Amino acid sequence: MSWQEKDNTLYKQYTFNNFIEAFSFMTKVALLAEKHDHHPTWKNTYNKVEIWLNTHDKGDIVTEKDRKLANEIDVVI
Amino acid sequence: MSWQEKDNTLYKQYTFNNFIEAFSFMTKVALLAEKHDHHPTWKNTYNKVEIWLNTHDKGDIVTEKDRKLANEIDVVI
Amino acid sequence: MSWQEKDNTLYKQYTFNNFIEAFSFMTKVALLAEKHDHHPTWKNTYNKVEIWLNTHDKGDIVTEKDRKLANEIDVVI
Amino acid sequence: MSWQEKDNTLYKQYTFNNFIEAFSFMTKVALLAEKHDHHPTWKNTYNKVEIWLNTHDKGDIVTEKDRKLANEIDVVI
Repeated sequence: MSWQEKDNTLYKQYTFNNFIEAFSFMTKVALLAEKHDHHPTWKNTYNKVEIWLNTHDKGDIVTEKDRKLANEIDVVI
Repeated sequence: MSWQEKDNTLYKQYTFNNFIEAFSFMTKVALLAEKHDHHPTWKNTYNKVEIWLNTHDKGDIVTEKDRKLANEIDVVI
Repeated sequence: MSWQEKDNTLYKQYTFNNFIEAFSFMTKVALLAEKHDHHPTWKNTYNKVEIWLNTHDKGDIVTEKDRKLANEIDVVI
Repeated sequence: MSWQEKDNTLYKQYTFNNFIEAFSFMTKVALLAEKHDHHPTWKNTYNKVEIWLNTHDKGDIVTEKDRKLANEIDVVI
């Protein structure tokens, strides 16, 4: 599944083999988010991770910052 | 705020000073969760972390495993 | 490179593409270590991670606990 | 203990109550390091963390980048 844009948000769901893989991925995303000072809303249950991206400072819409972070997440996974 | 039980789930919301503190706390929770093989549903946006605990194997109700993990989370924070 | 046993320690060095990959791997190892209550000595510089395993309680020698953790690390990587 | 400068390196050792606290601290340091693109050499055994900082690009000496990261580590701990 690729990133979906709906309701002014970029959304993607990931499924891993187990919690260790899921949280390891979340650590990668955390490092990218803090690096770019652009943080996701995300939710995890065991092996599933959902990520929502939009830009709060611009009125909660999808901006270039969201597309850039989405691309970087897809590269590090 | 202490843990609240509603809809067969233990729930608590945490607010930190920034993302680094929030994700550091999430790492503590991840270590506890994997150690006890009992994993939360949790959601994060920047400095906010929400945690929902219930026991899937028992029909998604609150059990002793949830109360134990909730207590341990309150100790490590 | 596989694990090497020398001076009563299991040792392995890993090289990743960057720090994000290295620290993501370290997070996996941390989750395994806390789960088994058996913790490595490890060192990191950017994309390099070195791990030393032995069993303190048995007089700092290599035991089955070390071989088990080494195997699990090789599985999650 | 404060940071010590010796052999062209800033060095500090930390002792925590357990591994969970130590690795949670390491996660904070990792987030800072990646944010500033300036990474430590560090070593951990259970509740102990040692950090060495210098600037590779300047010939492995202590620079302002090291002092800045050292200060930020002391703030987030």
